[in-house]
Amino acid sequence: MQKLHRRFPDAAITAAFKWMIIASVSAGVAVMHMQSPPVNSLSLEFLTDVCIALEKLEMDKSCRGLVVTSSQPKVFSAGLDILDMYGKSPEHCAEFWKAVQEMWLKFYGSDMITIAAVNGSSPAGGCLLSMTCDYRIMADNPRYSIGLNETKLGIVAPFWFKDTMVNTVGHRTTEMALQLGLLYSPAEALKIGLVDQLVREDQVLTTATETMTKWLAIPDHARQLTKSMMRKPTIDKLTSNREADVNNFVKFITKDSIQKSLGMYLEMLKRRKA
Amino acid sequence: MQKLHRRFPDAAITAAFKWMIIASVSAGVAVMHMQSPPVNSLSLEFLTDVCIALEKLEMDKSCRGLVVTSSQPKVFSAGLDILDMYGKSPEHCAEFWKAVQEMWLKFYGSDMITIAAVNGSSPAGGCLLSMTCDYRIMADNPRYSIGLNETKLGIVAPFWFKDTMVNTVGHRTTEMALQLGLLYSPAEALKIGLVDQLVREDQVLTTATETMTKWLAIPDHARQLTKSMMRKPTIDKLTSNREADVNNFVKFITKDSIQKSLGMYLEMLKRRKA
Amino acid sequence: MQKLHRRFPDAAITAAFKWMIIASVSAGVAVMHMQSPPVNSLSLEFLTDVCIALEKLEMDKSCRGLVVTSSQPKVFSAGLDILDMYGKSPEHCAEFWKAVQEMWLKFYGSDMITIAAVNGSSPAGGCLLSMTCDYRIMADNPRYSIGLNETKLGIVAPFWFKDTMVNTVGHRTTEMALQLGLLYSPAEALKIGLVDQLVREDQVLTTATETMTKWLAIPDHARQLTKSMMRKPTIDKLTSNREADVNNFVKFITKDSIQKSLGMYLEMLKRRKA
Repeated sequence: MQKLHRRFPDAAITAAFKWMIIASVSAGVAVMHMQSPPVNSLSLEFLTDVCIALEKLEMDKSCRGLVVTSSQPKVFSAGLDILDMYGKSPEHCAEFWKAVQEMWLKFYGSDMITIAAVNGSSPAGGCLLSMTCDYRIMADNPRYSIGLNETKLGIVAPFWFKDTMVNTVGHRTTEMALQLGLLYSPAEALKIGLVDQLVREDQVLTTATETMTKWLAIPDHARQLTKSMMRKPTIDKLTSNREADVNNFVKFITKDSIQKSLGMYLEMLKRRKA
Repeated sequence: MQKLHRRFPDAAITAAFKWMIIASVSAGVAVMHMQSPPVNSLSLEFLTDVCIALEKLEMDKSCRGLVVTSSQPKVFSAGLDILDMYGKSPEHCAEFWKAVQEMWLKFYGSDMITIAAVNGSSPAGGCLLSMTCDYRIMADNPRYSIGLNETKLGIVAPFWFKDTMVNTVGHRTTEMALQLGLLYSPAEALKIGLVDQLVREDQVLTTATETMTKWLAIPDHARQLTKSMMRKPTIDKLTSNREADVNNFVKFITKDSIQKSLGMYLEMLKRRKA
Repeated sequence: MQKLHRRFPDAAITAAFKWMIIASVSAGVAVMHMQSPPVNSLSLEFLTDVCIALEKLEMDKSCRGLVVTSSQPKVFSAGLDILDMYGKSPEHCAEFWKAVQEMWLKFYGSDMITIAAVNGSSPAGGCLLSMTCDYRIMADNPRYSIGLNETKLGIVAPFWFKDTMVNTVGHRTTEMALQLGLLYSPAEALKIGLVDQLVREDQVLTTATETMTKWLAIPDHARQLTKSMMRKPTIDKLTSNREADVNNFVKFITKDSIQKSLGMYLEMLKRRKA
């Protein structure tokens, strides 16, 4: 928390979780600082925290907007934690996948205004998290990238990842991006509409809170009904297929060939670190 | 009518309604000049006239194209008439909403080539009307704006307004535009595809009739079948839900909180005028 | 074959059909050279060959990618062969249409990576063929054009042509393109996303094989599942409506008025040639 206070001395911390801190920056606006070292991987534990935090904020009627950002350097979120899908029991994989679904359902269907302050790289599940928000501001640093790169790991983004991306950048761009597992530079992401705005790295969070002001000017009930109208069909598709989607994931991820791919990927990450 | 003749001395007036004049500019092409002072609000009376006029033109097999434009200065249409939703009985609101639906169904499903000559601002229902047309030409005057700004008034664009906009500018742009109630300048509207072409203000109508020539070169039956194929799913969604949509509107618009919002908005308009 | 060898001396011909040659350019990549003089019209005979060739390639597990290109000068494919719809029995028209459907189903649903090397004009069915591929590279020659121009001939692109185009360039662009039967220059096609890349005419095929390398880097099973997820809903729509779609086509195309239009078009083509 000290660390957060050093960075944002004016922010009042309203809730602290193991992997994140919720701070209040101004009337009605919370900021979720993800701090799950080293790269904010979306582990089962982390996702559980995120969902509890989001639920609390959703019930707090004084909270109208949420900024999601990272306290880790260079990364927004590295996406789903592979350690929760590698060498784990089918039961564990199922529990993990339900948590991923829950995170998506809560964010994509949030009544709050949600803005992603993408202050670092954001592959796979990190990209998904940012796409669930109402607006995406990314640091204009060419070393960062964003995209759903699952195929490069030999795995497949599920239909609701795909639907979220189609809703964001359209069918054709999604088709090519998902097949090739493309990671976009900030400039490319802006061009295809995967992010809405690029700013200097040290301006990401302040721009997010300034942008929030514009969204807060809209009467909540009208904005919420409108948001729901836009997103409900996509949300309903998962809601009515959650169990089949879990079974599908477990069956796929526990395959020998897929486990082998994940193992090789983890080895590669280790070598890169060393 | 004198006024119209001063503006378009060559146009033969073929039908005159209380709130609009239908002129014939060339073989097979009619122009609907909306003139419901001061801002072409889409009142129940006005909508009824529009529907009767459109029905007549549709049955007149010699009429293949229709240009819609405004005879009022600075405005194409200010959108739905709030006086038909404020302080009115549920029955009146229901009748009004049926007329709005009817207008949309007739325009969006028209067998004629329809071109909007947007020679002024076009918020809310005015934007909807222009989006039902096959092509939109707007005056390149930065003081004009166009968009579905319902949320700013605390109300919500219904699903078929939303569907029409998604069909025009895509899902993501619609999601943000509707949530924020965005009004776009002509240049911005061109960029997102909300209008197809910008021309000097005094060229809007002539460009519309020139553009019409290009569309008239296509065999009617092939063009009509193609247009229907593109729009039928969207039209069917409303056709099979008209009554529920009316009930939904009446229930929403007669709420105390919404009536209060509308009242405040009307007060604001009065003050602005004074 | 001699002719092909003169053009691509390094290519090993792996299969020769009456109207096309399949060559192997590198490990796992085949090139389909269409050579049905003069303009690669998609006749019943040609389509039958294409489907047999594609089926064989699909079953050959060593073949992972397919480039489709033309051996005819100035044209990729002129589209459906009008001689198979003009003055023919309803039975013949039905058989022809089934072959068109089959071609589309096989290409749009192909497990292989498919790249269109559009080295010439590509109207109507030629445009459709290129749109079924995963990537489109076009020769940057302003004399070439591409688009679904059916309405200009008085006929109508069926719903699955339309769906393919909507998936490629979006709803609004498709609505206008199909109504007006627009043919786009390479530069315009790139701008609306109808093709993905423009290169010098003599670089089309080499760029296609270079691009293929990028796609081959993705694990097949992940790419195939992703491709299927993107395209299955569109494919299912035709699969479950094939017979109705055939009947619809036969009923439409055998109409006196449509036959007359096709006859006039054929006369015009003859005069143009003379």
